[in-house]
Amino acid sequence: MKVAIIMGSASDWGVMKSAVDMLKRFGVDVDLTVASAHRTPQRVHDFVKSSSAQIFIAAAGMAAHLAGVVASLTVKPVIGVPINSEPFKGLDSLLSTVQMPGGVPVATVAVNGAKNAALLAMEILALQDDGLAEQLISYREQMAAEVELNDKRLKEASL
Amino acid sequence: MKVAIIMGSASDWGVMKSAVDMLKRFGVDVDLTVASAHRTPQRVHDFVKSSSAQIFIAAAGMAAHLAGVVASLTVKPVIGVPINSEPFKGLDSLLSTVQMPGGVPVATVAVNGAKNAALLAMEILALQDDGLAEQLISYREQMAAEVELNDKRLKEASL
Amino acid sequence: MKVAIIMGSASDWGVMKSAVDMLKRFGVDVDLTVASAHRTPQRVHDFVKSSSAQIFIAAAGMAAHLAGVVASLTVKPVIGVPINSEPFKGLDSLLSTVQMPGGVPVATVAVNGAKNAALLAMEILALQDDGLAEQLISYREQMAAEVELNDKRLKEASL
Amino acid sequence: MKVAIIMGSASDWGVMKSAVDMLKRFGVDVDLTVASAHRTPQRVHDFVKSSSAQIFIAAAGMAAHLAGVVASLTVKPVIGVPINSEPFKGLDSLLSTVQMPGGVPVATVAVNGAKNAALLAMEILALQDDGLAEQLISYREQMAAEVELNDKRLKEASL
Amino acid sequence: MKVAIIMGSASDWGVMKSAVDMLKRFGVDVDLTVASAHRTPQRVHDFVKSSSAQIFIAAAGMAAHLAGVVASLTVKPVIGVPINSEPFKGLDSLLSTVQMPGGVPVATVAVNGAKNAALLAMEILALQDDGLAEQLISYREQMAAEVELNDKRLKEASL
Amino acid sequence: MKVAIIMGSASDWGVMKSAVDMLKRFGVDVDLTVASAHRTPQRVHDFVKSSSAQIFIAAAGMAAHLAGVVASLTVKPVIGVPINSEPFKGLDSLLSTVQMPGGVPVATVAVNGAKNAALLAMEILALQDDGLAEQLISYREQMAAEVELNDKRLKEASL
Amino acid sequence: MKVAIIMGSASDWGVMKSAVDMLKRFGVDVDLTVASAHRTPQRVHDFVKSSSAQIFIAAAGMAAHLAGVVASLTVKPVIGVPINSEPFKGLDSLLSTVQMPGGVPVATVAVNGAKNAALLAMEILALQDDGLAEQLISYREQMAAEVELNDKRLKEASL
Amino acid sequence: MKVAIIMGSASDWGVMKSAVDMLKRFGVDVDLTVASAHRTPQRVHDFVKSSSAQIFIAAAGMAAHLAGVVASLTVKPVIGVPINSEPFKGLDSLLSTVQMPGGVPVATVAVNGAKNAALLAMEILALQDDGLAEQLISYREQMAAEVELNDKRLKEASL
Repeated sequence: MKVAIIMGSASDWGVMKSAVDMLKRFGVDVDLTVASAHRTPQRVHDFVKSSSAQIFIAAAGMAAHLAGVVASLTVKPVIGVPINSEPFKGLDSLLSTVQMPGGVPVATVAVNGAKNAALLAMEILALQDDGLAEQLISYREQMAAEVELNDKRLKEASL
Repeated sequence: MKVAIIMGSASDWGVMKSAVDMLKRFGVDVDLTVASAHRTPQRVHDFVKSSSAQIFIAAAGMAAHLAGVVASLTVKPVIGVPINSEPFKGLDSLLSTVQMPGGVPVATVAVNGAKNAALLAMEILALQDDGLAEQLISYREQMAAEVELNDKRLKEASL
Repeated sequence: MKVAIIMGSASDWGVMKSAVDMLKRFGVDVDLTVASAHRTPQRVHDFVKSSSAQIFIAAAGMAAHLAGVVASLTVKPVIGVPINSEPFKGLDSLLSTVQMPGGVPVATVAVNGAKNAALLAMEILALQDDGLAEQLISYREQMAAEVELNDKRLKEASL
Repeated sequence: MKVAIIMGSASDWGVMKSAVDMLKRFGVDVDLTVASAHRTPQRVHDFVKSSSAQIFIAAAGMAAHLAGVVASLTVKPVIGVPINSEPFKGLDSLLSTVQMPGGVPVATVAVNGAKNAALLAMEILALQDDGLAEQLISYREQMAAEVELNDKRLKEASL
Repeated sequence: MKVAIIMGSASDWGVMKSAVDMLKRFGVDVDLTVASAHRTPQRVHDFVKSSSAQIFIAAAGMAAHLAGVVASLTVKPVIGVPINSEPFKGLDSLLSTVQMPGGVPVATVAVNGAKNAALLAMEILALQDDGLAEQLISYREQMAAEVELNDKRLKEASL
Repeated sequence: MKVAIIMGSASDWGVMKSAVDMLKRFGVDVDLTVASAHRTPQRVHDFVKSSSAQIFIAAAGMAAHLAGVVASLTVKPVIGVPINSEPFKGLDSLLSTVQMPGGVPVATVAVNGAKNAALLAMEILALQDDGLAEQLISYREQMAAEVELNDKRLKEASL
Repeated sequence: MKVAIIMGSASDWGVMKSAVDMLKRFGVDVDLTVASAHRTPQRVHDFVKSSSAQIFIAAAGMAAHLAGVVASLTVKPVIGVPINSEPFKGLDSLLSTVQMPGGVPVATVAVNGAKNAALLAMEILALQDDGLAEQLISYREQMAAEVELNDKRLKEASL
Repeated sequence: MKVAIIMGSASDWGVMKSAVDMLKRFGVDVDLTVASAHRTPQRVHDFVKSSSAQIFIAAAGMAAHLAGVVASLTVKPVIGVPINSEPFKGLDSLLSTVQMPGGVPVATVAVNGAKNAALLAMEILALQDDGLAEQLISYREQMAAEVELNDKRLKEASL
């Protein structure tokens, strides 16, 4: 099981680190690279065509073409992470990533939604891996427990 | 291999029919239902909890909560289709579908992107089914051939 | 007289505290809880179904489904507070909260409008409680007096 | 039990008729008037100050000040219906209605959400009227039954 | 010659001070007041009806009804200044101020455009006052000279 | 008393005719011209510099520079009418017209707000003409009477 | 002198025809092709790499990556035409085309601005061709004459 | 070879400096000036009419008319740089610059895209200068090398 993460710029690392952390925490291999759709189109092409990953996560800002370019080169699932970039706060990144024309889909998550991109990749992989599915269910339970804990703390604090 | 398609309203059928057609054309079973997150929350709950589908496609307009509600009930991949609805042309549907908080992802496609939702679902299923993967590659080749044909026709017409 | 306040995340407390303070100041009981529509759907369900509050105030950010989910579970009035969340400054929260489809209304206030949510809840309760209505009228008079005081101070300062 | 409906322009009737119909269907009296915040400020003032209604529904388009003006004149609940108006499709109406400053709330529903305004008004009235509450629960059940019927029809049609 | 400036909140003073300064610098009397359309509707009414000013400048943020309310009470020119307010950066203020329905105009300037509101007021007054017109022409010449000075400084600095 | 109306394109006539009609109805002379800021900059310059009008109304769509260009050439009041143009429905026209930098104001009315531009021009002229002021007050009274008439008709129709 | 025009879809022809017509009218050769960045990435690559055109015009809608992809493959000037596409009216196309990251520029014109793309291409070519420059100046004069003609007609019609 | 850079305000220098630096680094002469379309229309006119530059780069914020005004005065290529200005983050600047009506094109780059404006200008000049074209190709190679270096560093850092 391997997920490839492509970032359009090294500056996206601050956001995408949480995707890598999440995947590693669940025992999924990560193939990480920096490759710009505009500055290094050949590099993107070569990476996608030679990768053994089952799923690609592509993160880019502004006129965020990276996920679409990756999706044009493979029929494996491509997850797009629009990066919150100045000055339009990721509205350009979001529309550039999600509004793909018919025929070449990109599975888009929220702006800066790196953690959810990793979870979505694992939900896909879990279709073939019951252990991973159980880990995801357990993660949901932990989140629910955390909500309850926060609730308890807040009630105490607000008394 | 089965994909469940949930529509928030029967009026979404005009858009979502192309997803059903696409899945059937590739030989994938479809479990179709109308279930509103707001008008029939229990129905959504029961459908998701009892479905044997590997993937859910959820389509809704306006304050489009359906995909998020489905995603809150399962760790299987959930694909969201924001429906173009009046008066905001699907901007509300898109933001309501894609801007999911950390922990519960929705794989969002373009507004009215029913066809791409079906293709994305099949890209996911194709990870375990080489025959389907080949069909997807072949579909891409057909699309490319169609572009070339359109190009030829246009050149003839514009002479 | 009791108002239930549900927050999608404990981080909404910074905004919602002013709603609690306002309700308590007017002598209205508050039933406060943290419950996420996406991370803890069952918890939201159980809270709404078992609450003895007359009115629900639900606060959430991003794809803010919480108020809509609460409204799908009760015919009591539900007030939605869209939370100002990054990067879209609450535009996603607002549209996700206010653009409810026909049949299941959410009474939406301004982004981060916690104080007004509390006042709206009390305007509703005051229909059955003349004392509360008088307090609200008196509060309006205090606000007007404050405007006059600010006017006086500004005129002195700007001389 | 009486609900007042104020429309900024007679041209809003096409949208607001469904609110009147809904209220009448549930046996709630309606006090209907046309009164513009900008063209007839005195008329708005007199109507609000003299009305015996428990709740006001105010509908207006563009720079939609009507609901806010009504809310400035009463501590009864005011429900705002932003009207879909050219060219901004109700975005101006929505922001003008919902973004009220602290102290004077307007309970805003979706753009053109006349039906939901009526339902919200009745949810508020139902807090003092168990019969009305039962009618609202029954209406929800009818909506759910309608969804199921639509589901059945769609499945038959799409076979 | 007198210009009335009404601010919806004392917190608008930080922006509107430049309008007062500009008017005083040109020798125009200013009648300054804080009066909220929503919190003190009667106060707005009384101020407008009793003012001897030729022109009103009204500044407000969010659902900025103040300029429209003033315009509904007078046929003197009303200039609206949309205030940059959180979280929508004045988009709500701008649309609430400028999108007035037919019959009751508001002369709207840029978000936070206090200085231009003052200049516009003086352009109007200058139609009856040649001295003021000459001052305005002279101010334009000073601005042009300042641009040339900045140009010179920049060229020196960038050598 | 004369008002100049400049349209960026002859296609704006459909919108601006109502401004001409309104001015003529009140007995104000109109100096009408078509002059594009981009296609005929010299023509705009010559018209503005030679006009004997007291006020300029400038109407343009898309990147609507016309009102700003006129304002750069005169210290007389300039009223901008953003034209509803495809595909952005006048959002570009509005922002291009209203967001003028400090020093050169444009009095902006609503998108397609030709009638209000004419009324605003007459409110300005009425500062020096009591007869015109009385006409404007009378027009307001007619509008109010029309609202009352519409109200009566609607009540009869909806019985 | 040759300009290449690439359209992402044959359906863009309705818009782009005016660019071809304009170029031919001025005697500039056109190399027209349909090539989708997403459906036929190799075709785009081959066309750009083998073209003898001096300038590329790329037109695409929605997540409009075409101009950016072309620009990543050449250092010749690339002009982007965002196509007005449903439901976002070209806002997605515009942001996807213009918001290019540093290093790889796209010269973007207005949404559906096919004619201006052709004129811009010829302004560039005219730097090396005085005859073309004179044609462009003459075209500007024709436009100015047309404005004057429209002005005359309108004045006659509106008498 | 000379490129003229016009800034609407000296405060744009912080953004535009990178355009000057980029042009100088490639050996292209720069003619830099501050000239406001609104505050100094004559200065803009004189600069454009007398300049010997082949290309104009115009940078402005808010209602950014500068590039359009320059384009109305010349048939040389005009590149527009929308400046990120408060409060609309350059959305107004972008629309005011790019949405030019048919006949007078502006080649628009990203908001604050000064570096890309310089590169675009050089791509145009390089059509007549093979040495400059080679420099641009070499710059692309350096960017690609930098991406690879960043990739290497990130992989080391994230181990």
